[in-house]
Amino acid sequence: MTDEMLHLGENAREAARGLGQSSGAARNAALAAMAEALQQGETEILRANEADLAAAAEDGMSLSLQDRLRLTPARILGMIQGIRDIRSEADPLGLVLGGGVRPNGLRVERVSTPLGVVAVIYEARPNVTADAAALCVKSGNAVILRGGKEAIRSNTAIAGALRNAVVSAGLPADCIQLVADTSRESARALMGMHGYIDVLIPRGGAGLIRAVVEQSTVPVIETGAGNCHVYMDAAADVAMACDIIENAKTSRPSVCNAIETVLIHQAVAREALPRIADRLEAYPVELRCDPAALAILAGRSYAVPAAEEDWGTEYGELILAVRIVRDMNEALEHIRRWSTGHSECIVTGDYAAAQRFLREVDAAAVYVNASTRFTDGGEFGYGAEIGISTQKLHARGPLGLRHLTSEKYLVTGEGQVRT
Amino acid sequence: MTDEMLHLGENAREAARGLGQSSGAARNAALAAMAEALQQGETEILRANEADLAAAAEDGMSLSLQDRLRLTPARILGMIQGIRDIRSEADPLGLVLGGGVRPNGLRVERVSTPLGVVAVIYEARPNVTADAAALCVKSGNAVILRGGKEAIRSNTAIAGALRNAVVSAGLPADCIQLVADTSRESARALMGMHGYIDVLIPRGGAGLIRAVVEQSTVPVIETGAGNCHVYMDAAADVAMACDIIENAKTSRPSVCNAIETVLIHQAVAREALPRIADRLEAYPVELRCDPAALAILAGRSYAVPAAEEDWGTEYGELILAVRIVRDMNEALEHIRRWSTGHSECIVTGDYAAAQRFLREVDAAAVYVNASTRFTDGGEFGYGAEIGISTQKLHARGPLGLRHLTSEKYLVTGEGQVRT
Repeated sequence: MTDEMLHLGENAREAARGLGQSSGAARNAALAAMAEALQQGETEILRANEADLAAAAEDGMSLSLQDRLRLTPARILGMIQGIRDIRSEADPLGLVLGGGVRPNGLRVERVSTPLGVVAVIYEARPNVTADAAALCVKSGNAVILRGGKEAIRSNTAIAGALRNAVVSAGLPADCIQLVADTSRESARALMGMHGYIDVLIPRGGAGLIRAVVEQSTVPVIETGAGNCHVYMDAAADVAMACDIIENAKTSRPSVCNAIETVLIHQAVAREALPRIADRLEAYPVELRCDPAALAILAGRSYAVPAAEEDWGTEYGELILAVRIVRDMNEALEHIRRWSTGHSECIVTGDYAAAQRFLREVDAAAVYVNASTRFTDGGEFGYGAEIGISTQKLHARGPLGLRHLTSEKYLVTGEGQVRT
Repeated sequence: MTDEMLHLGENAREAARGLGQSSGAARNAALAAMAEALQQGETEILRANEADLAAAAEDGMSLSLQDRLRLTPARILGMIQGIRDIRSEADPLGLVLGGGVRPNGLRVERVSTPLGVVAVIYEARPNVTADAAALCVKSGNAVILRGGKEAIRSNTAIAGALRNAVVSAGLPADCIQLVADTSRESARALMGMHGYIDVLIPRGGAGLIRAVVEQSTVPVIETGAGNCHVYMDAAADVAMACDIIENAKTSRPSVCNAIETVLIHQAVAREALPRIADRLEAYPVELRCDPAALAILAGRSYAVPAAEEDWGTEYGELILAVRIVRDMNEALEHIRRWSTGHSECIVTGDYAAAQRFLREVDAAAVYVNASTRFTDGGEFGYGAEIGISTQKLHARGPLGLRHLTSEKYLVTGEGQVRT
């Protein structure tokens, strides 16, 4: 680890101490100042973003990635509103989560505390800088932000404004630190900072997440891998299935709660698949089909044969894998084999099939008769989130304020000893 | 990873599927059979343990380690009672933890689920085999047990009886698997089984825990490192401080919630320290003293100078480090620097000092006027535990049934799509 990274870690620990003991009112004042600072700094942030975009265009960045990188006055307003929404959530710290008085008179309370220092490694979306900083300030955690090199000018402008804001509200500037070095080495250094960082959250593609899981000695929350399925059961309402599949695939193909594969029960495939295909043709969505599906869609130019790797691919674009299954067992088997445990859906009118799917599918969110696109902290009624966890430890599903806390036991007595 | 370990992982995943969907009644029936099996198998288990003990004595194992390894009819009865207690706890699975109906009519429920596959790496205490297996069966998790080589005959006898018991109750035998290979390689293999194992719990010394944290790609819950302190404040009741220090150091020195260092406010040191030393002399406890403490205890043969490394040592035996501090700031600074975040105690009659200690000390359990020895699932009123977590993610403090669960969202609709 370089001196620079070590210094960053020490600063974060020191800032976390002050922040962790600040009142909810002080943290809310900082959040108000952070929202205000983005408003005041809009021109400067947009100018920095333009420079990032110019460099990205010169480097030949794809248009869809450029779109993620782009900030507009409307998007900055969205960031500001996001901070205000987080400010208005209940304080996640100091909650008494349980406890009681023991037979020996000892009083035991379990209370929520900050985690300490949170590090986030992300790619080209500069809004993550504001979102992650606001969630961490609200939950009393110092944050170390390591964004992608494409967004470094935008991130520097945003983080600079936010740091000034927390200082103006009387909190340590190092509550929010942006890593200036956007090389792989800085990401790797963060992964090794056990003792300085309490949790590392990678937000990005499968490659980043795999690298973090393999290399990190810091506890990790895996987010965002979404190979999601819709299983259309024999007892499905075909019109409903068409609506759900269209919405789950096309409303925002790049996000993790979009679907990548549709499994269709053989009993309804001949009727349903052409109607699904008609609906998706408009976009158009390319259909990667198993032989049975391909036979049904013979002659349609956007229906092509699927290869084995299609079942394991998170396309993130207008491509959908299609497989006809013999029965529900085969659908469950396919999902077990290929799902990343994010969001899985059955469309059915059959009570027993619905209950079985809810029980047997092992994923963060399991749906009956609704689009997987709802997997989101706000849509679930749990407020802002920093990602969707696909692991089972600590947090599963939308990763909100309460997941950015730990707990401790407060034990108060009058001299009790253990016999 | 060897074929054997891969096979073990596959078996565990397969067993976890069946176990995870079993009813609470089926899991309780298995636990009843497990308790019964230990009773039936007592003679065989004791015979296996005698063989372990004979080999250990031949290898020159220390008497205190031999004591940990030793099983007696009373200790087997303790294991049986432990299983029965776990059986009588509430089912931790299928609990509705939250949720509601969203404005669009979507019903969102957050429910508790098993983690899947839990691996436990431990050392020479064969009772861990029964405790960990019972906690995992109750919480619907398949368990992979990797005990120390010294206890392999005892563990094999215990695990064999427990496996037969779960089969007799209709659950898969591989709910409980003992790793026959007790080499370092098998421990290392478990650490790399991401995708097969959902959580790895090391129970043992600092070296084992460090190795697991550094090498594991599987999420880890760190347990058991306990460098715990009692801070005797200026406003402490001296008699109470003596009671607490004596209890926290001597009632069971080898466990993680025993203390290793006493910090004494300079204002009371001259009065209190000789009384504390008198109390500890009876055992006797060796006192590793800073210069100020040594000056007060001059001439006592069991008071010796402390070296820097004493502040960082978890003795696990009748040795106590002693330091006189200028004020509470210095005590908090010492604890921040050296604590492993397990259990920390202040003895004081001063309200503000007590409040400050509770607020500022960052540990799993923070005490006012009570012995640190109470950090234990049963003592806290939370039931059986598999260890004390000293990390902040997922679980902190006593690691009970509820920490052996994850959650999932069940989302049920009537065709809702996201606009």
